[in-house]
Amino acid sequence: MSNKSFLGKSIVSIRDLTKEDLDTILEEAERMESIVNSGKRPLEGKIMAALFLEPSTRTRLSFEAAMHRLGGAVITVSDPKSSSAAKGESLSDTIRTIANYCDIIAMRHPMEGSARLAAEFSSVPIINGGSGAEEHPTQALLDLYTLKKELKIVEGKRIAMVGDLKYGRTVHSLAYTLSKFKKVKIDFVSPPSLRIGEEIKSDLRDAGNEFTEGGSLMEIVPTADAIYMTRIQKERFAQESEYAKVKYAYVLNKKLLEKAKGPIPILHPLPRLNEIAYDVDDTVHAVYFRQIFNGVIVRMALLNLILGGKV
Amino acid sequence: MSNKSFLGKSIVSIRDLTKEDLDTILEEAERMESIVNSGKRPLEGKIMAALFLEPSTRTRLSFEAAMHRLGGAVITVSDPKSSSAAKGESLSDTIRTIANYCDIIAMRHPMEGSARLAAEFSSVPIINGGSGAEEHPTQALLDLYTLKKELKIVEGKRIAMVGDLKYGRTVHSLAYTLSKFKKVKIDFVSPPSLRIGEEIKSDLRDAGNEFTEGGSLMEIVPTADAIYMTRIQKERFAQESEYAKVKYAYVLNKKLLEKAKGPIPILHPLPRLNEIAYDVDDTVHAVYFRQIFNGVIVRMALLNLILGGKV
Amino acid sequence: MSNKSFLGKSIVSIRDLTKEDLDTILEEAERMESIVNSGKRPLEGKIMAALFLEPSTRTRLSFEAAMHRLGGAVITVSDPKSSSAAKGESLSDTIRTIANYCDIIAMRHPMEGSARLAAEFSSVPIINGGSGAEEHPTQALLDLYTLKKELKIVEGKRIAMVGDLKYGRTVHSLAYTLSKFKKVKIDFVSPPSLRIGEEIKSDLRDAGNEFTEGGSLMEIVPTADAIYMTRIQKERFAQESEYAKVKYAYVLNKKLLEKAKGPIPILHPLPRLNEIAYDVDDTVHAVYFRQIFNGVIVRMALLNLILGGKV
Repeated sequence: MSNKSFLGKSIVSIRDLTKEDLDTILEEAERMESIVNSGKRPLEGKIMAALFLEPSTRTRLSFEAAMHRLGGAVITVSDPKSSSAAKGESLSDTIRTIANYCDIIAMRHPMEGSARLAAEFSSVPIINGGSGAEEHPTQALLDLYTLKKELKIVEGKRIAMVGDLKYGRTVHSLAYTLSKFKKVKIDFVSPPSLRIGEEIKSDLRDAGNEFTEGGSLMEIVPTADAIYMTRIQKERFAQESEYAKVKYAYVLNKKLLEKAKGPIPILHPLPRLNEIAYDVDDTVHAVYFRQIFNGVIVRMALLNLILGGKV
Repeated sequence: MSNKSFLGKSIVSIRDLTKEDLDTILEEAERMESIVNSGKRPLEGKIMAALFLEPSTRTRLSFEAAMHRLGGAVITVSDPKSSSAAKGESLSDTIRTIANYCDIIAMRHPMEGSARLAAEFSSVPIINGGSGAEEHPTQALLDLYTLKKELKIVEGKRIAMVGDLKYGRTVHSLAYTLSKFKKVKIDFVSPPSLRIGEEIKSDLRDAGNEFTEGGSLMEIVPTADAIYMTRIQKERFAQESEYAKVKYAYVLNKKLLEKAKGPIPILHPLPRLNEIAYDVDDTVHAVYFRQIFNGVIVRMALLNLILGGKV
Repeated sequence: MSNKSFLGKSIVSIRDLTKEDLDTILEEAERMESIVNSGKRPLEGKIMAALFLEPSTRTRLSFEAAMHRLGGAVITVSDPKSSSAAKGESLSDTIRTIANYCDIIAMRHPMEGSARLAAEFSSVPIINGGSGAEEHPTQALLDLYTLKKELKIVEGKRIAMVGDLKYGRTVHSLAYTLSKFKKVKIDFVSPPSLRIGEEIKSDLRDAGNEFTEGGSLMEIVPTADAIYMTRIQKERFAQESEYAKVKYAYVLNKKLLEKAKGPIPILHPLPRLNEIAYDVDDTVHAVYFRQIFNGVIVRMALLNLILGGKV
């Protein structure tokens, strides 16, 4: 899609976007930074429905903030129980109904494939805010935009991804997205039982990107241009003893970061538990809160491209 | 009420509205169609409270979308449990409190008579978004507006109402509303145990409108100018065997509609279960999703008339 | 703080405000009265997050209405369960996240000290909408503004406070606030077990304000310039028999108010149960519903001072 061809389109999966699309979104996002507090209201008169049939307060707020920053209005469904789905209505009917209240739908749904289905039936564009275990394209885009903003150039960089690489969907999407950039090298760091899947590795190989596996946090800190941390959830382990073994091996702290080659950015999709120590918060490495702001910026970019706001 | 006399008034029951009032609302609704996407904001600076002390996501969203389309702002109570009513506060106190936060209240409440009570105590106008089992005036108005828009002229038309005519409040209100239009003929089609009540029939007789009862879906399709479908709920039957008998007798599908005299509109208050087959969705008859949009338009009309927006 | 020095500041406790600060807020509040319905939108483009990690529908609606009256936008968290706090996130992380979605946070939290903590970590100003059992500064400010508006001059007045003076936090804050005004005399009227705490009495003594204790409602009505009523909750008594004894001794009604020296204002933080009889509602004394409106005005004043809206 070129800039204009986002007009009226749905965003369902990061895999639907070409490298050119990614570049268009990154450029629009940069433009959006100057819209915040500019007094400009390119989407005044437009309505976004935040249809969260699975609760996710921060993704919802990020979409809502993005729409408000562009001067648009928001209607919200944040409680799945009170919706007509609970009365036995089909998702396609729910979507066709909600589409009559708004100009665009930002939706989240627990079911794999739900956003694709919604996009087929909706008379207005859909932005997928998370569907099932795999697709969460706006998270991948905000991660990418954060790397771009911090590193200036993504091409040729060495990026470490740490933690639960098996179940963490943000890691999958980001690795896939990075495979579109030339000569990015990825170091996957995880417990043996939570390694990245074969599919992602094959994506990287096909795209000609290098990657390593099996390294430790200690090993990758000195070589990394950026580190993407994720939560390791206790529930992922069959036995608590197994969890106990890895619990502290994937915790980043200030001391470890003294080995970094410079002010490298640390990212995290948040919420964090203990995988980034609080003593990192006051260092130059702590990009994870700015990353939240970038989420608003990237969602502004999508809303504005799709709804054709004049800036 | 003439156009001006809606100013500051509450809308509690469809029975409070004269034929002239209905005409005023229908005309204002038509005007509203051109406001959507016009960039006009006649209610900018005004606040509507959506006070949903009984949950109803779509009625709430429809009111909220209507207010936003007019440039107004919205504050929402959608969770009855978190309100002060739960602390033992009287409804009159709740209303007098909420009235201080806004310029108009769109309210829904499980109790019969609640909207009337609210209108008495409120210092701002109330629009009833459903109170108890009977009153839901904005639904009746959007049904009427949809018929008007699709049929051009309501007078002299033959309209079938199908399904649960005993408990379906939308049918009661619409039949009453249609009784105000000359020479409308209504065919009531329902299982024997779910027939329309005597009160409505006597309204129609008093107004000089004809009606039939006891016909089948097959019989009325060829003569109808429009069909209003409703859900038949299993819970309404004492025995499941009784429900099983009628389950498929009130289902409209594409094949049946081939017998229609033309592109007649099918309406439904939604959500539907199986009473309109999915193969109808792609036909010219499928007006039920546009009906949702008309709900926004009609609520815009009421908000604008009551708050005196300049268009 | 002078007018300008509110810019970007948090409001955590009424005890942080000097007499000069209170005067600034009261003056700004007066100015705000003319903003409502003026069409002016000094905070257009700004976003307020209503972060209610403890439910309080009316405080939330009051903040939201205030922001909308100033032309600003609102994003809302009203269901504590759906927030990331439920996933084990620290309050400081939650606040640093939410701060990236907005320009100001109005927050309520069940924990004592939570607002102070939030203000330390937030990159945007915080307004405390109630934290734990003691701090609820905007309630104290709206009570003070109501007295000012009704009495013209607060200095030298005699104000009765009635009901649960031990647990009622609104009484504590208001008494403290009034201690900053010269020659205010306070009559505390409560059951023996629900008397005002020593701390407040010592505040009043230090400031040179007189007060009485132990009087009855009958005794104070004729001398009061204003009466501040509060709820007496059954749960506060160890035995139901104790509650039964005082149940009717702190109920204000029309007959009692005939003994008042003039059209003295009755205030109440609401919701009320039976402590103000309904027959007072239609008298000149019934200020408690206007008080709700004053809450919007005072919150407008704070939002506008802190965000630097041009009026």
